[in-house]
Amino acid sequence: MKNIDLIKVNALIEEFIAQRDWDQFHSLKNLVMALSVESSELLEIFQWLTEEESRSLKDDPVKKQRLEEEVADVFVYLMRIVSKADINLEEVVLRKISANAEKYPVELSRGKATKYKDLLK
Amino acid sequence: MKNIDLIKVNALIEEFIAQRDWDQFHSLKNLVMALSVESSELLEIFQWLTEEESRSLKDDPVKKQRLEEEVADVFVYLMRIVSKADINLEEVVLRKISANAEKYPVELSRGKATKYKDLLK
Amino acid sequence: MKNIDLIKVNALIEEFIAQRDWDQFHSLKNLVMALSVESSELLEIFQWLTEEESRSLKDDPVKKQRLEEEVADVFVYLMRIVSKADINLEEVVLRKISANAEKYPVELSRGKATKYKDLLK
Amino acid sequence: MKNIDLIKVNALIEEFIAQRDWDQFHSLKNLVMALSVESSELLEIFQWLTEEESRSLKDDPVKKQRLEEEVADVFVYLMRIVSKADINLEEVVLRKISANAEKYPVELSRGKATKYKDLLK
Repeated sequence: MKNIDLIKVNALIEEFIAQRDWDQFHSLKNLVMALSVESSELLEIFQWLTEEESRSLKDDPVKKQRLEEEVADVFVYLMRIVSKADINLEEVVLRKISANAEKYPVELSRGKATKYKDLLK
Repeated sequence: MKNIDLIKVNALIEEFIAQRDWDQFHSLKNLVMALSVESSELLEIFQWLTEEESRSLKDDPVKKQRLEEEVADVFVYLMRIVSKADINLEEVVLRKISANAEKYPVELSRGKATKYKDLLK
Repeated sequence: MKNIDLIKVNALIEEFIAQRDWDQFHSLKNLVMALSVESSELLEIFQWLTEEESRSLKDDPVKKQRLEEEVADVFVYLMRIVSKADINLEEVVLRKISANAEKYPVELSRGKATKYKDLLK
Repeated sequence: MKNIDLIKVNALIEEFIAQRDWDQFHSLKNLVMALSVESSELLEIFQWLTEEESRSLKDDPVKKQRLEEEVADVFVYLMRIVSKADINLEEVVLRKISANAEKYPVELSRGKATKYKDLLK
């Protein structure tokens, strides 16, 4: 995992949108729809693969590139939502990890998908 | 938009998962499903709101907190995918913005939702 | 609303699948992924439209046809799930309507999106 | 697969909605969002299961009931869309199966998930 310069990336996204006058379409309602659509395009890549096949997909350059493009799309819309809703992303993520750590005590959750199934709810 | 320390955040996520031995469930197939499920929980917040109502949702502290929690969930799963697939996120996002800038020339796209509808495809 | 001959339609779907030997890919896990992907393709049609534009979309023959195709896809996968899980669809739907009628008493729910927001949960 | 009396089921759905004056929220845009949200709730049931576990889920009465409820929700919203957009469901589904039969010739598609991956697009 490398770091990312969110301020720079966000400035480029906002410039792209301002040049096209597309901010008018970016209500939160529309942005969450777009995020969901892009997440499904990620899903589409994997829908007929076995879990094993999915684990090695990154070794196929063509498929990895498609994966990267969909991940980028999800990320861009997520950053639009963060920006439009004035969300302090790092703070919010750290708070959620902390809440999950309480919700899923190590001793009760260890190796259990049944418990895990409800993670992050 | 504030910056985020991805390396720190990711280390916390990985520690959380390692402690619970949950990495075994994190095939890319399962992770994209989880990402899609969390995106839909964002969608659920907005499904019966008008666009106008969605624009002001962030001013309601209770609703904003729910929004923040779902955004955090989407972000965490997206980081899992980035990490498992060895994706260089900043590079991939910059490349995508650049490709979109070519695909949607300013003069043809300005203010047009019809064009925009296909953004990021 | 016209009636539909589910037995006939399902027989055609099953024949289509048997001829291609695709049943092996139809675990419930894969089928719900496919259903979700197709639902998102419906979503994609509407993501940048206003609610008003969405109400009149059916009057545009080209857009209506795209809508019909995505509705057909969702329906086909839903029928696969119904068939694979031995679900008695009519019974299950009537039971759910009845449960919702209790959950959302007329006098409390009338005209309220806030209440309605949680419909069918 | 049993038949279903769509006219009766739809009349019950419309009565339920009319009593609560909820038709005002049922723009196609909102209905496709609701359909997508419900599809994701189906997805949620399966997200951490293996394909094998998903195949036998219907033998667990508690899980089967949850599955049935989510299937009912998806079906109800799909019928709302069919009704609001004046779609002739049987005709549209038969047309799509027929188009897919041409798009995926038996000899080229037999047993291939790679081909199948794009089914119904």
